[in-house]
Amino acid sequence: MIETPYLLFLGDAPDQLAAKVAQGIKDWRPDNAVGQFRMAGCGADLGLQDMTLAEAKAAGAKTLVIGVANRGGVISAEWRKILVQAIEAGFDIASGLHNLLRDEGELTAAAQTHGQTLHDVRVPTVAYPIATGIKRRGKRVLAVGTDCSVGKMYTALALDEAMKERGMNSTFRATGQTGILITGGGVPLDAVIADFMAGAVEYLTPDNDDDHWDIIEGQGSLFHVSYSGVTMALIHGGQPDALILCHEPTRAHMRGLPGYALPTLQQVRDMSLTVAQVANPDCQVVGVSVNTQHMTEVEATEYLVKLEAELGLPAVDPFRQGAGRLAEALADL
Amino acid sequence: MIETPYLLFLGDAPDQLAAKVAQGIKDWRPDNAVGQFRMAGCGADLGLQDMTLAEAKAAGAKTLVIGVANRGGVISAEWRKILVQAIEAGFDIASGLHNLLRDEGELTAAAQTHGQTLHDVRVPTVAYPIATGIKRRGKRVLAVGTDCSVGKMYTALALDEAMKERGMNSTFRATGQTGILITGGGVPLDAVIADFMAGAVEYLTPDNDDDHWDIIEGQGSLFHVSYSGVTMALIHGGQPDALILCHEPTRAHMRGLPGYALPTLQQVRDMSLTVAQVANPDCQVVGVSVNTQHMTEVEATEYLVKLEAELGLPAVDPFRQGAGRLAEALADL
Repeated sequence: MIETPYLLFLGDAPDQLAAKVAQGIKDWRPDNAVGQFRMAGCGADLGLQDMTLAEAKAAGAKTLVIGVANRGGVISAEWRKILVQAIEAGFDIASGLHNLLRDEGELTAAAQTHGQTLHDVRVPTVAYPIATGIKRRGKRVLAVGTDCSVGKMYTALALDEAMKERGMNSTFRATGQTGILITGGGVPLDAVIADFMAGAVEYLTPDNDDDHWDIIEGQGSLFHVSYSGVTMALIHGGQPDALILCHEPTRAHMRGLPGYALPTLQQVRDMSLTVAQVANPDCQVVGVSVNTQHMTEVEATEYLVKLEAELGLPAVDPFRQGAGRLAEALADL
Repeated sequence: MIETPYLLFLGDAPDQLAAKVAQGIKDWRPDNAVGQFRMAGCGADLGLQDMTLAEAKAAGAKTLVIGVANRGGVISAEWRKILVQAIEAGFDIASGLHNLLRDEGELTAAAQTHGQTLHDVRVPTVAYPIATGIKRRGKRVLAVGTDCSVGKMYTALALDEAMKERGMNSTFRATGQTGILITGGGVPLDAVIADFMAGAVEYLTPDNDDDHWDIIEGQGSLFHVSYSGVTMALIHGGQPDALILCHEPTRAHMRGLPGYALPTLQQVRDMSLTVAQVANPDCQVVGVSVNTQHMTEVEATEYLVKLEAELGLPAVDPFRQGAGRLAEALADL
């Protein structure tokens, strides 16, 4: 686990979009962010208080999180200087960059000298077991998508929020680097060795109280030929009681695969349920989450109404409407 | 690629079963084995000529292959001494043991001094790409199973043999360590990082002649919750034109999963085909390969006849009958 709260490092982010990891932390776990650190020329602003390292330390920040995805994922000389200063000031550092912190000699040396920890969330730090398939206590819900990047993480975080608002007992379980940085822990599933993928998901979602829901962040799609194996391991390792279908209706083809059309929601429902019932015969599909950002309000509403009628399931855009109806569908299970 | 031919190292194998990797090489690629090397007390015998290192070298052997799986997968002091002598005598060493050759300082030092190569086939040595899903030339057939260890590798090797006998243009493509040691190359798929599994299978089975068949070694099962993600990546990365269903009819439950019943062949056929047609809409299921080693000849024959009628597909035990009918089914496609 990464120690919270954080100081969010925006560096010299060229624009707001480049700071989307920091934005996710601020949106979903505002208590985890005491302030932001911006270098000269930074084009991003989260609306948090700008702090020096000393001010953030005084405000209680434990970890400096690199909240910006720069081109090439490289740690520049300017960044490195500030990161060393942060370590000297008593911060741990957390990063999801391709350029690992541990591969930077100055950072590892400073961390060793000052007793601080470097978290490269892109790389597993646990020797995950082989999955056993043994039935676990507690309940689990998983978001499965027609494609990659259709809003599965957003759906899971919105669902967690809606369930907590209703007094339900839930935990968001991150399976990707942004989710791990937002919540401080999780499994970087796409970087796990093939044989241990399903075991890593079992490790992430252990036995729990009977009324507790693990909300497992989905990855990839059973219909995305590059990453379908990861999705498969999520379903079998996650042993879900409930599935939520996620979709983005305006895509011309699968992400990164120009020759591949998107599957229908019916196809995703049928294949996901068949797969999931191998691990949990009682699994049900309980709702649909649609990312309607490229549709007008009218188009979105019409689309969702039509989908509800076709599938006989609640269909919502959690960004426009919240995930309350999905939370209620789970409560009704 | 591992340089052939081999000297097969049986070490102090307690019995014949412990030497199954060496047995596989002798059975399927006899030209790859110039002789066997046995230590005092070795309980295995492949019926090959016993050779000293010098004799094997003189007979043309290039690589000493550790053909024995010992308890714990550890390299003992006695083994290490012989392996160092082999390196000094000009052999490369190949191993699928958990205890990696590269983790043994004496072996890496000797290999460096004498310019020899250590092959740990359990560990990938290639940075595999992300799968692109782009349609490839040539044809591919994949064995998919109801469970792990039902005879998928045996089926693929027998099919390769039967196709070559018929003058067909085929290549066995290994995806596990035994297959890699038998043929000298392949992808250790269970050790590949999740994101690159399907890409590793694409790398293994590139564009080829229009009449050429890659026979891809299967792994796991879509219905085995521990390893299904690996199977999924094999199907989507392999982009198969044909599937062969593999089954062992006497199992009480899935291998290593006491609570899990085996799926029916109909279930495996339907799910595998649905998955495969995402990557190749023309994919067909062409036959069934049954491991009947725990049935009498009469039971086996009755079972296979019944299966053929039920599924409308040729059903054979390649060990008892050869894989000729499966090869013919592929030729008819």
